[in-house]
Amino acid sequence: MSSRLLRALTTTEDLADLFSDTTVLESLLAFETALARAQARLGMIPQSASAATERAAVVEGFDAASISRQARQSASIAIPLVDALTARVHAADADASRFVHWGATSQDAIDSAMTLILRRAQTVLAADHARLERSLRALSDQHAHTVMLARTLLQPAPPITFGYKVAGWYGAIHRSWRRLCGAFAEAVVLQFGGAAGTLASYGTQGLALARELSQELGLPLCEAPWHAHRDRLAALVAHCGIYAGALAKIARDIALLMQAEVGEVAEAGGGSSAMPHKRNPSGCVIVLADATRIPGLVAAFLAGMVQEHERAAGGWQAEWVTVADVIEATGSALAAAAGVIDGLSVFPDRMRANLDDTYGAVFAERVSMLLTPKLGRAAAHTLSKDWRDNREVAALLTAEQLESVGRAEDYLGAAEEFRRRLLES
Amino acid sequence: MSSRLLRALTTTEDLADLFSDTTVLESLLAFETALARAQARLGMIPQSASAATERAAVVEGFDAASISRQARQSASIAIPLVDALTARVHAADADASRFVHWGATSQDAIDSAMTLILRRAQTVLAADHARLERSLRALSDQHAHTVMLARTLLQPAPPITFGYKVAGWYGAIHRSWRRLCGAFAEAVVLQFGGAAGTLASYGTQGLALARELSQELGLPLCEAPWHAHRDRLAALVAHCGIYAGALAKIARDIALLMQAEVGEVAEAGGGSSAMPHKRNPSGCVIVLADATRIPGLVAAFLAGMVQEHERAAGGWQAEWVTVADVIEATGSALAAAAGVIDGLSVFPDRMRANLDDTYGAVFAERVSMLLTPKLGRAAAHTLSKDWRDNREVAALLTAEQLESVGRAEDYLGAAEEFRRRLLES
Amino acid sequence: MSSRLLRALTTTEDLADLFSDTTVLESLLAFETALARAQARLGMIPQSASAATERAAVVEGFDAASISRQARQSASIAIPLVDALTARVHAADADASRFVHWGATSQDAIDSAMTLILRRAQTVLAADHARLERSLRALSDQHAHTVMLARTLLQPAPPITFGYKVAGWYGAIHRSWRRLCGAFAEAVVLQFGGAAGTLASYGTQGLALARELSQELGLPLCEAPWHAHRDRLAALVAHCGIYAGALAKIARDIALLMQAEVGEVAEAGGGSSAMPHKRNPSGCVIVLADATRIPGLVAAFLAGMVQEHERAAGGWQAEWVTVADVIEATGSALAAAAGVIDGLSVFPDRMRANLDDTYGAVFAERVSMLLTPKLGRAAAHTLSKDWRDNREVAALLTAEQLESVGRAEDYLGAAEEFRRRLLES
Amino acid sequence: MSSRLLRALTTTEDLADLFSDTTVLESLLAFETALARAQARLGMIPQSASAATERAAVVEGFDAASISRQARQSASIAIPLVDALTARVHAADADASRFVHWGATSQDAIDSAMTLILRRAQTVLAADHARLERSLRALSDQHAHTVMLARTLLQPAPPITFGYKVAGWYGAIHRSWRRLCGAFAEAVVLQFGGAAGTLASYGTQGLALARELSQELGLPLCEAPWHAHRDRLAALVAHCGIYAGALAKIARDIALLMQAEVGEVAEAGGGSSAMPHKRNPSGCVIVLADATRIPGLVAAFLAGMVQEHERAAGGWQAEWVTVADVIEATGSALAAAAGVIDGLSVFPDRMRANLDDTYGAVFAERVSMLLTPKLGRAAAHTLSKDWRDNREVAALLTAEQLESVGRAEDYLGAAEEFRRRLLES
Repeated sequence: MSSRLLRALTTTEDLADLFSDTTVLESLLAFETALARAQARLGMIPQSASAATERAAVVEGFDAASISRQARQSASIAIPLVDALTARVHAADADASRFVHWGATSQDAIDSAMTLILRRAQTVLAADHARLERSLRALSDQHAHTVMLARTLLQPAPPITFGYKVAGWYGAIHRSWRRLCGAFAEAVVLQFGGAAGTLASYGTQGLALARELSQELGLPLCEAPWHAHRDRLAALVAHCGIYAGALAKIARDIALLMQAEVGEVAEAGGGSSAMPHKRNPSGCVIVLADATRIPGLVAAFLAGMVQEHERAAGGWQAEWVTVADVIEATGSALAAAAGVIDGLSVFPDRMRANLDDTYGAVFAERVSMLLTPKLGRAAAHTLSKDWRDNREVAALLTAEQLESVGRAEDYLGAAEEFRRRLLES
Repeated sequence: MSSRLLRALTTTEDLADLFSDTTVLESLLAFETALARAQARLGMIPQSASAATERAAVVEGFDAASISRQARQSASIAIPLVDALTARVHAADADASRFVHWGATSQDAIDSAMTLILRRAQTVLAADHARLERSLRALSDQHAHTVMLARTLLQPAPPITFGYKVAGWYGAIHRSWRRLCGAFAEAVVLQFGGAAGTLASYGTQGLALARELSQELGLPLCEAPWHAHRDRLAALVAHCGIYAGALAKIARDIALLMQAEVGEVAEAGGGSSAMPHKRNPSGCVIVLADATRIPGLVAAFLAGMVQEHERAAGGWQAEWVTVADVIEATGSALAAAAGVIDGLSVFPDRMRANLDDTYGAVFAERVSMLLTPKLGRAAAHTLSKDWRDNREVAALLTAEQLESVGRAEDYLGAAEEFRRRLLES
Repeated sequence: MSSRLLRALTTTEDLADLFSDTTVLESLLAFETALARAQARLGMIPQSASAATERAAVVEGFDAASISRQARQSASIAIPLVDALTARVHAADADASRFVHWGATSQDAIDSAMTLILRRAQTVLAADHARLERSLRALSDQHAHTVMLARTLLQPAPPITFGYKVAGWYGAIHRSWRRLCGAFAEAVVLQFGGAAGTLASYGTQGLALARELSQELGLPLCEAPWHAHRDRLAALVAHCGIYAGALAKIARDIALLMQAEVGEVAEAGGGSSAMPHKRNPSGCVIVLADATRIPGLVAAFLAGMVQEHERAAGGWQAEWVTVADVIEATGSALAAAAGVIDGLSVFPDRMRANLDDTYGAVFAERVSMLLTPKLGRAAAHTLSKDWRDNREVAALLTAEQLESVGRAEDYLGAAEEFRRRLLES
Repeated sequence: MSSRLLRALTTTEDLADLFSDTTVLESLLAFETALARAQARLGMIPQSASAATERAAVVEGFDAASISRQARQSASIAIPLVDALTARVHAADADASRFVHWGATSQDAIDSAMTLILRRAQTVLAADHARLERSLRALSDQHAHTVMLARTLLQPAPPITFGYKVAGWYGAIHRSWRRLCGAFAEAVVLQFGGAAGTLASYGTQGLALARELSQELGLPLCEAPWHAHRDRLAALVAHCGIYAGALAKIARDIALLMQAEVGEVAEAGGGSSAMPHKRNPSGCVIVLADATRIPGLVAAFLAGMVQEHERAAGGWQAEWVTVADVIEATGSALAAAAGVIDGLSVFPDRMRANLDDTYGAVFAERVSMLLTPKLGRAAAHTLSKDWRDNREVAALLTAEQLESVGRAEDYLGAAEEFRRRLLES
């Protein structure tokens, strides 16, 4: 009973797999197995119990639908999962079943299992991010000298290069990814604290067990359990939101540039069921749809941070589905954006034509700057609005100025320098 | 590849089924079938084409995973679905395949199909709501005279009855449901406008076809297509959010009253994997978890309302998954809340004991009111703080006042009147 | 120490006045005065006390900055306000000061005072709304037959009329305002419950006093105090959000139509400090800026609905500033939108030219519909993409069809009928 | 016309001053002055022009209300401010007025001015943060061995120490502040790009001027103007949200511990207007109220990141008021939290009593761990629920185990180790 259709534009196949029942079960069982192995190694439980747990802890033996149903009794998926695992171990080795989930608490299993999934999610995102960065750099270099209109408040402004515009996109993506990686590094840590976050159930062996378990799972230890302190995850979710915001800025720019009346770029795009002629900015639409969803999800996570005492009554239980939704939507936007950039057609002639169609209006600022020392700011501002074919203006400028003043190439300022700095950052 | 585990606490089985691939496919195919039947009835396409479409439009013939994958090309699930349907019709009757999805646009199919699901969702919610209302009324009547502390800013305040408290819950639920039903009634309408919202592809027959289709699907017509005007859906989503907020207020109250140190009520509750002694407010936790998620989702919907021209580039495509998430989370909270109230134990003795434990402090207001005409507000305020065993106070009150002043039953004001008005509303 | 500059684009002068210290003080004092008058009328306090309170309750006598500072001690602005009022009454009439705020609680004063402000806010909004509706109707009528491109996913689609587009805006505004008015009607009610919501401090006179107070303030009574049940306010805030979303859809459409390359409409607009040539969509920008803020504020309100027991510890105290922010931003957007529509220039020639510039592509759907019965959907879809100058297409159509197929006026379907229905709704 | 009353609980006096008209004007004028000085130093404008600008750029000369009103024409406060400044300069020195705001754009002035304010805001927050950290460390050390109940899902769990609980608060605050400082460091950079982000109006001198201006204002340069790339600010806003979430977790814990029935801590608190006996968790209430607002504001910022081309039409204009709201609310929560911790009373006896009142139930886990190797997990779980006075249990444990099993001090696990690590982090 999946819901792929409803979520088609807000996840990717790879990420949907990562947050599927199969992977969630797999990760929960990986936690229980690692716990048993670590405990057996420390002599806390018999080797046979560990081995029996490991044998029983295979995804195929579990019924996700049934566990999900039972989870609503205890508000925890780990409790019915542990019950089912215990039953499976018991069927094979009654003695061993005594030691399943030995001394751990539901949250240890769930948080650590989900963290294992986070780590895999980062790898999935990283591949698409690398592709996107590479394509943006190449695109920027290729159009270092392609002149186009800047647009402010959706109106024509003095020229930039398309290469500079792309470098701006690159810079935001690059910075936001770097921050997101920092957030992943902080958030991908073992949660292991037992019932109250003290590991008391393990007597004096708690810290040693935490170290073993950390090694088994490859999840670093942080200074203490984080069962009620969710700032690391919050940072991860927030930086996904920022990264997605940076992707959506690209998508909006491209969707606008791709309007028929503008026509400066085109993504490979998709068709329409009704309109044979259409080439839609489908990739941009997916990015923008994902970015519409994410800010609210970030807010939902932040609102849930106000967690009661040593385990929240509501705030925690809302978290992981929100984390999954945010990562999936971010990954969906990223995959779509990478596809858009890879398949982007750029039309420099049209860029030039749109610039020319302003009939010099976007150089009014330049004219104004030249006239201001002579006329003052207000008079220059007024006179330069329609500077072309204006004799008064012509009389005030030198021949050289008059020739250059409407040439876009002469009015790019530090665009190329900024472009290079952005790509080097 | 479902994700039931991750969503176990944020949907119910019934609602997950409603937004599953099966039901989404079923609803999209119901739209295409109804369209063909309506067109055949009006003589716009051959009867045989309608019949062939109807025969082909069975869920089993479609691969949701594949359609979802293709949907990312066009940013629409309807396009690959229509392609697949056309291919199925063609295999059986090549002539008939010419008329599949005749003149309609993707958004007509998706919005109307989802609206069909909305209508079914309302029925699912309505059953649990009716149960909850009934239980709240009974609980309120049963405890019309059960005295307990009010609590303001989490501190003891003058007494109320538990029946009045429950009636307050009832009132908010009742009002919010009534508003939500109004929103459903407005939102459950046919979307049918063709490519540009004019039905131009049907020549002069557009309006007649819209009427036929409306009847086929049992979806009322509204004044015009709403492809880019989403206020009706926004109201539905917002009223779900308000209803869920009212549910969560109940859940928070109960979770607080169930604290061991308070102990005034207990839900049937669930256990803990680590702690054998525990009886958790699991139902309340589910309600609170859902309510943590929903406000952000409402914001996501509202943010998406800013839709470009005649079909949005992003805002629309983000909508339905958000609508589904909100309805599922609302339904999950509702089912959990209904379960909590049905299984609620109430401990009037403990309520009385907690009141007594304040040693009369909560009647300080009453003492203050009695003393104020004699001493003025400030002096009365000060003196009444520790009015018990205070000779000065005793000297200022009559014997009758002294006897009554600490009796909760004498200080309930209009609680019972308000309770009855709330239940009658 | 105001912050008008920071809030210049997110409120109006009228609304900023409504939520200013002066009006808040005025409204709080109006509550205290009305309470005293009602109590005096019922003989609960001396007439002289009521008169003294009324004399003291003048805004000029109070220091908002000092009250604000003290409010952080008690988490309530009403407590220091009542203290200051009591002191002022005392200075004039020590006996009378005993009866200030007699038996009421902070929340009664604050909620009722703010509700008085809400009522005034509705009047402010209503004036701009009426102006906007009127202008939209006139604009729609004026352009009932002005043909333009529809645009879906920001790409050209078959034609509509500008009148129909405007009628769609009107419909959403009209419906959303009607819902908002319903929410105002429900929310503008007296809050009066005393410490615990029972009016117990007034003995048997509570309900009579509530009725008197309700009349004094002109605020209707609802079935019971709503100190911890905030669904009515939530609905008000949410419907502001929906209304603002509908405004922002208009603003986005206009800002897009006003792009130099599209040039189909222009708002009166504003200039640029750097660029003399610019005419910016300044009004639309304000609407869009406001609409960017509002959804998150709605989420904040909904999140705060989870209020503990009989007065929340946090959720309530966050509310009124959020309500003010939402109403001010909505009013700012509304005023800007009304200004935009009033000053809108429409360029039908440019609309026609943009349509013509698609060289018939937007009629591909129509061609496809004509060819489908002959060729089937797929072949027709392909052939119609470049139907102009295509001999195969020409051979398949009648002369009459060929002449009409690219004529926008012949392909408007029910646009005019829908337009009229929307305006009549 | 300030609105201090409405915002009393959501800002502090210091922060309200920072975002007041006075400081905003001051900062805008500081930008204009610095620009003139830098330009004069580079010989781009006459020294006299710079001097005249500096003389005119004093806050007292400007009317914030009038500028705010005019700002709605251009959707920018900088344009009327520059006009007013130019007029003032002109009145004193007509020649000098030609060079006011020379070549800059509104966004340069606004973004840089607000960034100057951000820098000052960080200092304000830092002082309260340092106080809070210090107090938390001291409190944790003081109660390193104060035993209390842990509580999970609001139910009793095995013991912890209050010192460990406080160290958990400290850890989250400490980490979140460190991240927030990183965000400040990234965000506090000069914005200077001119009309299109190229500095073209300055010819070849753009980069040199940027360097001079950066030095004048003490705002570092980043690689390029960030007029349409707002990820740095987004990170700042998000990290405020996370920090506030960590504060609110403390506040919720304390408000819960302060319930009369729990009574384990008490903040200095505030009173009630109706109830003389009350000591409210007023500080916690302020923190929780602020934290209720902030997540939605963070969402609003993220939603605004989708900015069009080289200057957004709406997304940018919504930003600074949101940034101010978030910083003010964060600072309000921080100041309140610091006050709460500084004035906190702790009642170790009550903590012990509440633990004892569970009659050993919270040690059921421990009993269960001891019994499991003998009985298996399920039987041990069942038997340990009521282990006290249970002969079967007594028979299965050693005398030493029986004596220790209910002693909280023997069941603290690594609490003290974790506490120390958290404080050392």
